[in-house]
Amino acid sequence: MTPTPADVLAPGIDTRLSVREGFTRDETGLRGRVPRGVVRARSTADVVACVRWAAAVGVPVIPVGARTSLEGHLLPLGDEVMLDVSAMSEIIRVDQSDFVAVVQPGVTRRQLSAAVSPYGLHFPVDPGADATLGGMAATNASGTTSVRYGGMRRNVLSLTVVTADGTVHRLGRQVAKTSSGYDLKDLFIGSGGTLGVITELTVRLHPVPDSQGSVRLSFPDVEAAVDAATDLIGTAAPVSRLEFVDAAATSALNGFCGGGLPPSPALFVDVEATSSAALVDVLDGVEAIARDHGLLDGCRAQSAADRTALWDMRHRLFPAIKAAHPGHGFLVTDTAVAYSRIAEAVARAHRVADELGVHVTTAGHIGDGNVHAVVPYSGATFDRARRFSDRMVEHALSVGGTATGEHGIGLAKKRYLADEHGSACVLMAAVKTALDPQNLFNPGKVLDP
Amino acid sequence: MTPTPADVLAPGIDTRLSVREGFTRDETGLRGRVPRGVVRARSTADVVACVRWAAAVGVPVIPVGARTSLEGHLLPLGDEVMLDVSAMSEIIRVDQSDFVAVVQPGVTRRQLSAAVSPYGLHFPVDPGADATLGGMAATNASGTTSVRYGGMRRNVLSLTVVTADGTVHRLGRQVAKTSSGYDLKDLFIGSGGTLGVITELTVRLHPVPDSQGSVRLSFPDVEAAVDAATDLIGTAAPVSRLEFVDAAATSALNGFCGGGLPPSPALFVDVEATSSAALVDVLDGVEAIARDHGLLDGCRAQSAADRTALWDMRHRLFPAIKAAHPGHGFLVTDTAVAYSRIAEAVARAHRVADELGVHVTTAGHIGDGNVHAVVPYSGATFDRARRFSDRMVEHALSVGGTATGEHGIGLAKKRYLADEHGSACVLMAAVKTALDPQNLFNPGKVLDP
Repeated sequence: MTPTPADVLAPGIDTRLSVREGFTRDETGLRGRVPRGVVRARSTADVVACVRWAAAVGVPVIPVGARTSLEGHLLPLGDEVMLDVSAMSEIIRVDQSDFVAVVQPGVTRRQLSAAVSPYGLHFPVDPGADATLGGMAATNASGTTSVRYGGMRRNVLSLTVVTADGTVHRLGRQVAKTSSGYDLKDLFIGSGGTLGVITELTVRLHPVPDSQGSVRLSFPDVEAAVDAATDLIGTAAPVSRLEFVDAAATSALNGFCGGGLPPSPALFVDVEATSSAALVDVLDGVEAIARDHGLLDGCRAQSAADRTALWDMRHRLFPAIKAAHPGHGFLVTDTAVAYSRIAEAVARAHRVADELGVHVTTAGHIGDGNVHAVVPYSGATFDRARRFSDRMVEHALSVGGTATGEHGIGLAKKRYLADEHGSACVLMAAVKTALDPQNLFNPGKVLDP
Repeated sequence: MTPTPADVLAPGIDTRLSVREGFTRDETGLRGRVPRGVVRARSTADVVACVRWAAAVGVPVIPVGARTSLEGHLLPLGDEVMLDVSAMSEIIRVDQSDFVAVVQPGVTRRQLSAAVSPYGLHFPVDPGADATLGGMAATNASGTTSVRYGGMRRNVLSLTVVTADGTVHRLGRQVAKTSSGYDLKDLFIGSGGTLGVITELTVRLHPVPDSQGSVRLSFPDVEAAVDAATDLIGTAAPVSRLEFVDAAATSALNGFCGGGLPPSPALFVDVEATSSAALVDVLDGVEAIARDHGLLDGCRAQSAADRTALWDMRHRLFPAIKAAHPGHGFLVTDTAVAYSRIAEAVARAHRVADELGVHVTTAGHIGDGNVHAVVPYSGATFDRARRFSDRMVEHALSVGGTATGEHGIGLAKKRYLADEHGSACVLMAAVKTALDPQNLFNPGKVLDP
């Protein structure tokens, strides 16, 4: 008798309802279905076994790590098996003289940072959450340091992946650059678990700079802050973080932790220098540019403790917004636009929020043109929050921007894919069908083949 | 009566034998067949018309620009039409405040540099030859500045391409980063004209740094030069070029232009700084690292004239090698390896050259682990030169490196693709078949679907 999905179990599958129900919710406020079960892989061989079983019985697979996706990548839509690789958390090796680390996909960003710090090295991609490297690759994550170091595409040299027929492939090489063959490594990065399962990553590490300094700069209005940020980019200042917060954000911070900030838009800037003397020059230069744009108030931090305090303030923004809206969920937009369109995008966020009667705070990676709008919602205002998101994406796309700078398409942004890419969606679907003809991996996410 | 390939001509096809015969040779020493003809496109519409005609009559198409490929990308293997886009050479716009330019594919690197220089901006990717931007994207070109700015993948934000059914697609967006959908832009970059025809590029520009300085550093041996280069990377020195030449190269330069260099391995280093005071500190730091590794002789250049003179020396290397070997062709390897494997690769180049009885000079982008070996060959030694190349690639692959850091696979490196990528070649072939089912574009290059 041929086995059927109903009577064949994956090796080691956990089918307890309480475990399965844990996968029906995530950060988006959307609800998923109860998955068939959870398989916890401890090795590439475990992943191969699960994928082969799934392909044989026709059960789709969702690769899962720390589950910090903000776009519903990991919500089951049918009868999927969750293939949890978070226990594949070994740092296989750190090659100090080659500036690389080889890691399993369940290694988290903080775990990697702690492991490479003794070598005077760092892994720069920081999406905020303590995500797994596998998940960060799957979403092409980036964050505050991407203005200087880029996101996952630039910092992953090679991937090991398991594709739909259970084959283990190595994509890319452990070299600074290559022009050999098609760039499958970057195709899998950002594919949201729809093309295969990542089982190993070779990532690029960077030396910790000799001197780093930080400055918080307050401006009379958004335009001035954006113009100052653009000038910083245009003068080749050695900026390693270039973050924006609006007046709503500084007010929230003042209310939450007595920040004493002017209630006006601000930039948080990190710079790198080759010596402490050069650092002073660089910070002087940054502040001079800020003064050209009507600087209201500045705060410079050079010691490690002062820098930590300055950035702690920035990192308390989301807790501050949460504290100001108890009992709410939070929708976070992720559009990115060209520099010349940022001020317009921020102004539009506030105008649309007023029209729809929702609260908004804007903050984000202005050096990449990627400013998030955070909208608290209750059951009564969820639809309005989604309409807000639609309006922001429509605007970004109308000026040539992207619906998602760093979170990925997942489920929540899928509706925008065709508007952003037009006919190229047909090419994406052709690639998906070529590499996953059975639609085995994370079906219904990113695109429908 | 149904038209057949023999009696249907592409719009505006040039079938003069003298013109067609010009396409049978290139820099590789390999010979191509005489193509069917040449179509010179002046617009995306011309490209669409040619591709539709070609698809309808089943004639393959090779997109052609400045024809500076070093790997036989553009040699006809059958009855192809050469689709020459070099007349599509318009710089469509420069958006100074967004740090981007939009260009047609026939715009050359020097043409773009001249156009953006008045804005205080530069396009950093410099493969040496005055290649077209379209061709540079097709091969994922890079060069001396890639250690700081990356190659084409990092500096092309979006592409317009015409695919096999004559559809015009836009891949990527004019934003610093995006996680939206599959990364088709980077898939087409480096695909060697095998997936479609590039008809427009949006490229990233960078501000010209305030202060730049250069230094030439001579070392007692290759190991010392490599160790110094690795230390420069490891100290986060703001290096924008990091070039290596071996003792054979310095000897060739001394013979050619009376360089007066110590006949020993050397580094040519460019650094960037935020002020002239900081520049002196940075150059002091670079020289201190060089002294730690037994510096024999150094030459510092801070003025624009001195810097030009210093780099002119480096740029005369290939003319110097040519002058020393009149009547020869030149094979140039393009392997890249991890930093810890560079010295071994250079030593092996000289050992293998001795074994095979060929002359070799090694020089290249040590900051990317991409050191070229240049082997002069005559009719009698061509086979030995090819064997030399095989041996170098075998070694690079055996230590985890790549057959081609920046030239691309084309025709000449195709034999190495399977050794480098193993089973992933099956995925590449699946992608090719999905996007170009008729094998219309540049058949027989990069891979066989």
